[in-house]
Amino acid sequence: MVWMESPDSLEALAFGRPDHGWRRRWFVVMFEADTTAGRLFDIVLLLLVSASVLVVLLETVQGLAQPYAGLFLALEWVFTLLFTAEYVARLTCVQRPLRYAGSFFGLVDLAAVVPMYLATLVPGLHVLIDIRVLRMLRAFRILKLTEYMHEYGHLGGALYASRRKILVFLSAVAMLVVVLGTVMYVVEGPGNGFTSIPVAIYWAITTMTTVGFGDITPKTNLGRAVSSIVMLLGWGILAVPTGIVTAEMTSRRLWGGPSRRCGSCGNEVHAAEARYCHRCGTVLG
Amino acid sequence: MVWMESPDSLEALAFGRPDHGWRRRWFVVMFEADTTAGRLFDIVLLLLVSASVLVVLLETVQGLAQPYAGLFLALEWVFTLLFTAEYVARLTCVQRPLRYAGSFFGLVDLAAVVPMYLATLVPGLHVLIDIRVLRMLRAFRILKLTEYMHEYGHLGGALYASRRKILVFLSAVAMLVVVLGTVMYVVEGPGNGFTSIPVAIYWAITTMTTVGFGDITPKTNLGRAVSSIVMLLGWGILAVPTGIVTAEMTSRRLWGGPSRRCGSCGNEVHAAEARYCHRCGTVLG
Amino acid sequence: MVWMESPDSLEALAFGRPDHGWRRRWFVVMFEADTTAGRLFDIVLLLLVSASVLVVLLETVQGLAQPYAGLFLALEWVFTLLFTAEYVARLTCVQRPLRYAGSFFGLVDLAAVVPMYLATLVPGLHVLIDIRVLRMLRAFRILKLTEYMHEYGHLGGALYASRRKILVFLSAVAMLVVVLGTVMYVVEGPGNGFTSIPVAIYWAITTMTTVGFGDITPKTNLGRAVSSIVMLLGWGILAVPTGIVTAEMTSRRLWGGPSRRCGSCGNEVHAAEARYCHRCGTVLG
Amino acid sequence: MVWMESPDSLEALAFGRPDHGWRRRWFVVMFEADTTAGRLFDIVLLLLVSASVLVVLLETVQGLAQPYAGLFLALEWVFTLLFTAEYVARLTCVQRPLRYAGSFFGLVDLAAVVPMYLATLVPGLHVLIDIRVLRMLRAFRILKLTEYMHEYGHLGGALYASRRKILVFLSAVAMLVVVLGTVMYVVEGPGNGFTSIPVAIYWAITTMTTVGFGDITPKTNLGRAVSSIVMLLGWGILAVPTGIVTAEMTSRRLWGGPSRRCGSCGNEVHAAEARYCHRCGTVLG
Repeated sequence: MVWMESPDSLEALAFGRPDHGWRRRWFVVMFEADTTAGRLFDIVLLLLVSASVLVVLLETVQGLAQPYAGLFLALEWVFTLLFTAEYVARLTCVQRPLRYAGSFFGLVDLAAVVPMYLATLVPGLHVLIDIRVLRMLRAFRILKLTEYMHEYGHLGGALYASRRKILVFLSAVAMLVVVLGTVMYVVEGPGNGFTSIPVAIYWAITTMTTVGFGDITPKTNLGRAVSSIVMLLGWGILAVPTGIVTAEMTSRRLWGGPSRRCGSCGNEVHAAEARYCHRCGTVLG
Repeated sequence: MVWMESPDSLEALAFGRPDHGWRRRWFVVMFEADTTAGRLFDIVLLLLVSASVLVVLLETVQGLAQPYAGLFLALEWVFTLLFTAEYVARLTCVQRPLRYAGSFFGLVDLAAVVPMYLATLVPGLHVLIDIRVLRMLRAFRILKLTEYMHEYGHLGGALYASRRKILVFLSAVAMLVVVLGTVMYVVEGPGNGFTSIPVAIYWAITTMTTVGFGDITPKTNLGRAVSSIVMLLGWGILAVPTGIVTAEMTSRRLWGGPSRRCGSCGNEVHAAEARYCHRCGTVLG
Repeated sequence: MVWMESPDSLEALAFGRPDHGWRRRWFVVMFEADTTAGRLFDIVLLLLVSASVLVVLLETVQGLAQPYAGLFLALEWVFTLLFTAEYVARLTCVQRPLRYAGSFFGLVDLAAVVPMYLATLVPGLHVLIDIRVLRMLRAFRILKLTEYMHEYGHLGGALYASRRKILVFLSAVAMLVVVLGTVMYVVEGPGNGFTSIPVAIYWAITTMTTVGFGDITPKTNLGRAVSSIVMLLGWGILAVPTGIVTAEMTSRRLWGGPSRRCGSCGNEVHAAEARYCHRCGTVLG
Repeated sequence: MVWMESPDSLEALAFGRPDHGWRRRWFVVMFEADTTAGRLFDIVLLLLVSASVLVVLLETVQGLAQPYAGLFLALEWVFTLLFTAEYVARLTCVQRPLRYAGSFFGLVDLAAVVPMYLATLVPGLHVLIDIRVLRMLRAFRILKLTEYMHEYGHLGGALYASRRKILVFLSAVAMLVVVLGTVMYVVEGPGNGFTSIPVAIYWAITTMTTVGFGDITPKTNLGRAVSSIVMLLGWGILAVPTGIVTAEMTSRRLWGGPSRRCGSCGNEVHAAEARYCHRCGTVLG
C-alpha cells in the first residue's frame, strides 16, 4: 500500500522512514503525528507512561506498598513488556536503527525497560529500588508529543541563543555564593550551624534563591546583617530589572518615549517630543 | 414603561433581556451597571457578600465561636434568605433562566445558598461545618462588578491566548519535580523525612517555587547538592529571563539596538549603526 | 536683597514662596534644592534624620539600653528640639502655613516631634515606648531630597497610571487566598495548626507569596496536594509571564517577529516574512 | 622578534604594553586572549584558581580536615608559590606596574597570596583560619576571562546606567523595612522573638524578600495581619510589574496596540485602529 506523500518530519530525516509497507505504516504511527492513528498512539502512550510513573510513585508510600505489592509487581511487568515491545517495534521500522538507539529518546526508552530485567538478574540487592526509579525518566517521553515539541523546541532555542548570557549570569551567582558563604562561615562559625564552608555555601544558595528553609539561620548580629545583604541581592536581582522594565514601558506609554536627562541642569524630561529643557531652557541633545 | 435603548451587554445577549416592564427594570439593575440603580445594586451586593464571607471567617475563630454563636446563625440566615431572594429574582427576570442557572455565576449563586438548607435537612453531621464554608465561593461574586469585568476579561484573555505556552511550561515543571523528587527520595531516603516519592515531590515543589517551608530538609551532603540544583532552577527560571529582557531593553536604549556578534572574530558589537566590526574590520551581517 | 528669579517649584506653587527678604531666603534653602545652601541643608537634614532613626533603633537593643540610657535621652531631646525649630521655621517662611501643616510632609514633620512632648506630659505609661517609635516616620523625610523626588514621582506616577490593573490583580489574589485558605482549613483542620480560617488565610498568603515561614505546614497528603497548587500559583504568577515575555522578545530577535500559527494545519511558523505555511502550503493570514 | 600589530585592548592601554621582547610576549599571554597561548593561559589559570578554592572549601569539612591536613597544607603552598610567581611576572612585564598593583584585579591577586605569608609570620593565632579564606577572592579572577569580560561589562554597564533608579528603589525598600520592622516590634514585642528593632528589621527583610526563614514568626493576630502586608508588598513588587508588562505585550500582539479608555463613558477599547468608542459613539482621543 502506497502511503500519501507527507512532508519530511525531523524523525523521517534523522532515522530514515521506509517508503512502503507495514514498516512505513508503523513508522508513521509511532514517530509522526499527522494521522489520526499517529495521534491516537501518542495519547495511549502518554496514558501508559503516566500510569507507570504513578505505580513507581505509589510503591514508595508505606501504607500502600505491602497490601498491593503483588498488583504493583504485576503492573510493572505489564508496562515493561509493553514498552519493550514498543522499543523493538521502533528499532524494526526505521531504516537506521542505530541512529535511533543512540538518540536522546532512544536512550530514554531503553532506560525505561532495562531496570526491571536487571532487577531479575541481580536479586536481593537494596539498590534494586533505586534502579527501578529510573523508569521515572519515562516521564520525559511526554516531551515527544510532536505537536508540543515545537513549543519545547522554541523554548529550548531561546535558551540556546542566550547561552553565553546565561553562563555569565550563573557564574557570577556561583562566585557570589562562594564568597558570601565563606564570609558567613567566618562570621557565624560551626557552633551556629555553619559547620563547614560547603554547608555555608548551601545556606547562601538557600538564602539567595529566597527559598529560606530555616534549617540553618544566623544567630549573631553581624551574621544577620550579612544575611540581609544576601537576601536583598537575591530578591533584588528579580525586583530591580522588573521595576526598570516597567518604568520604561510606562514611560513609553504615558509620554511617548523614555525620559531623558538635560545635559545642563540635570533635570529629568519626560515628554518625548520636548526639544528644550523646561527648567533651564537648553536645547536637548 | 419603555426603557431607553442601551447597547446590548454580554448578559443581555446571553441570558435574554426582556423588552419592557418590571422584568426589564430588574434585569437592568441586577445584570448591568449602566444606570445609577445598577451600580448601587452592585455596591450593596459587594458589601453583603463581604459581610457574609466575614461571618464564615469569624465563626471559626475559637474565641468568638461560642459567645456569638446565636448572632452568627441569625446573620447566616439573613444572608441566605437575601441571596435566595436575589437568585429567584435573577431567574425570574431573564428570558432564558436555564442559561443563567448553568452559567458560572449562576452556579456560584446557587452554591452560595444551598449549604444552609442542606444543613437544616441533614442535622448533626460533622460535615455541616464543611458545607457551610462553600459560601466562601460568594467571594467570586465580587468578580461580577461589570466595570472591572473588562479588566478580568482582559487578564483572562491574555492567559487564554497563551494557553499552549502555559501548558508546555507547566508540564516541563511537572516532569522536573517528578524526576528531581525521585532523585532526592533515593539520595536522602525515608529516614531523613523523605518518606515516599509523593512526599519527595511535594518537597521538590516547595523548593522549586522557592517557598521553602523547612518541614522537610536534606541532611546528606549529596542531598544538599541536589537541593541546590532545584533551588537554582526555580529561582533561575525567574532571574535569567528577567536579566535577559533588561539587557535587551538597556541595549536598545543606550546603543539604539541589541548587540550583535561579528561572524569573523566573535567580537560583541554594541553600536546599532555600526557597519564594520571595530576589532577585525569585517563587514557586519 | 532681591533673589534671582528661579522657576516655580512644586513647593513654591503649593505653599506660597515669599518674594523677598529673609523669609524667601529660608524658603529657598529649606524647600528647594537649586542653590548650594539648599543642597547642603538637605544633606545635613538627611544625616540628622538618619542619626535620630539610629538612636530609636539602638534604644531597643537590650545590651545597649541600660548603659547608654542617659546619652540616648539627651540625644532624643537634641533631635526633637532641632526638628521643632525646623518645623517652626518652615511654618514661618511660607505664605500659606496651613497648606504646609496639612500636607503629607507637614504631618510627618509634626509626628516626628510630638511624641517626645507627649511622653513628658503623660509619664509612666508603658505606651510611651510605642509613641516614641513614631519618630521612625522621620525616615520618610529622606524622600524629600528634591533631586530624587522626581524619581519617586516617576515611580509613583507609574503606579497611579496602572491603579485599575493593580486593584484588579490584588482583588483576584485576595479572593484566591480566602478560598484556598478555607479549603486548607477544611482539609487539615485545627489539630494540624490551621486553628481558624483567618489563620489559614495567613498561611495561604505565606505560601502564595513564596515566603513559606514554616510555622504552619500541611500534615495530610490532601493538604500537601492543595499546598502544591497554592505554591505553583504563587510562583507561576511570576514565572509564566516572565517566560512568555522572553519568548516574545527572543522570537522578535531571532526571526524578526512573533511566531504565527497556520489556520489550516496548525503548524507554528516562526519566520516573520513567510507568506506560505511551510508544511501545508496554505497562504498565511 | 616583532609581534604582529594587534588592536589595543583595555589592558594594553591601562597598564602599558611593551613593544617587543619577552616582556611583550608575556604581556600578550597573561593579559590578553587573542592568541592560542593567551587563551590556554586563561584556562590553566581558571583550573588552578578553582582547585585552590576547592582546597579552602574542603579544609573546613570536619571529616576531611584531619586526615588530609598535610596534603592540604602542601597544596596551599604550591598554589601560593604559583600565584606569587604569576603576580611578580605581571608586575614585571607591564610598563606601569603601579597602575596594575592598584587596580581591582591587582589587589585581588595580591590578597590571594598575602594571607599564607602572614600566617607564617604570625603563627598560632585563631584568626589564621579567617585570613586564609580571603583566598576565596581568587574566585573573582575568573571574571578576567577576557572573552566573557565583555558580557560582564555589558551587565555592569546596564547597572551603572540605571544607578539612580536602583538607588531610589533600594532606599524606598530600606525605609519600608525600617518602618514595618518597627511596627512589628511594637505589635509583637520582645517576648515573641522580636527582641529589638534591629532584629525586627532583619525579620522584615527576611519577609519582604520572601525568604522567610521562620526563625522569627508573628504570634499575635495583629502581627500576622501586618506580616501579610509585608509579604504581599515583597511579592507584589515582583508580580504587579510582571503582570502589567505581559498585559501590554499581549495587548500589542492581539489587538495591535495597548487598550485605551473612552473619555466619555469610561469604556475600555482594545482594537488599536478603532476611531469611535463602540459603546457610546464618541470620537476617541
